[in-house]
Amino acid sequence: MADLPPVELLVCVKCRRELDVPEGGTRPGEALHAELANRTMSEGVTLKAVECLSNCSSGCSVAVRGGAQRWTYVYGNLMEDRDADMVVDGISKYAATADGIVPWRERPEHFRKNCIARIPPQEF
Amino acid sequence: MADLPPVELLVCVKCRRELDVPEGGTRPGEALHAELANRTMSEGVTLKAVECLSNCSSGCSVAVRGGAQRWTYVYGNLMEDRDADMVVDGISKYAATADGIVPWRERPEHFRKNCIARIPPQEF
Repeated sequence: MADLPPVELLVCVKCRRELDVPEGGTRPGEALHAELANRTMSEGVTLKAVECLSNCSSGCSVAVRGGAQRWTYVYGNLMEDRDADMVVDGISKYAATADGIVPWRERPEHFRKNCIARIPPQEF
Repeated sequence: MADLPPVELLVCVKCRRELDVPEGGTRPGEALHAELANRTMSEGVTLKAVECLSNCSSGCSVAVRGGAQRWTYVYGNLMEDRDADMVVDGISKYAATADGIVPWRERPEHFRKNCIARIPPQEF
């Protein structure tokens, strides 16, 4: 994979997942980011905390992108205490592609069912 | 606006808007693209037809992006026979910004209520 462009895994750390988070409390998005930060990412994958992916009604949310030739994907309805390993697996498969399109059957089931949107490559 | 990067307005022409479109019939996404193609875009804005933005349950859909410093936005629930002028207006305001963030009150109401997701700038 050394010849493929690097991948960014963007995690919305502001997501409340429509819960009532008390002042100073840990938001679900922050907890998801922390879980992911505790995992080993595939080569070339960088985890980044971002603010609001505007998918608030279907959070928690991540976006993944990587270079001008790959599609960008947004995934939602993630649970901070359940989905970190699945996200690492799905992003690892994404990072192994040149265009960002992982064959349908190889995608984690959650990704198949909770793709919020995708954006074409910069060059298409 | 001559010093701002160009903007791409991407329209999903495959969208059926969950309707039963007969074989060979015009899909709602295609009709929306045709309506937009009949409008004059702001300077620097290019209309492009794309395939499936994976927002099928909330179509019709468009995405807008433009350069490494702007946020990318996906908007949904667009009606091909109603929303073309509003889209042109909203994209025009987007194209006038350096970061893609149009002040909330200046955004068309439909954009405020139907933002499906947004992706941070490439450089942030």
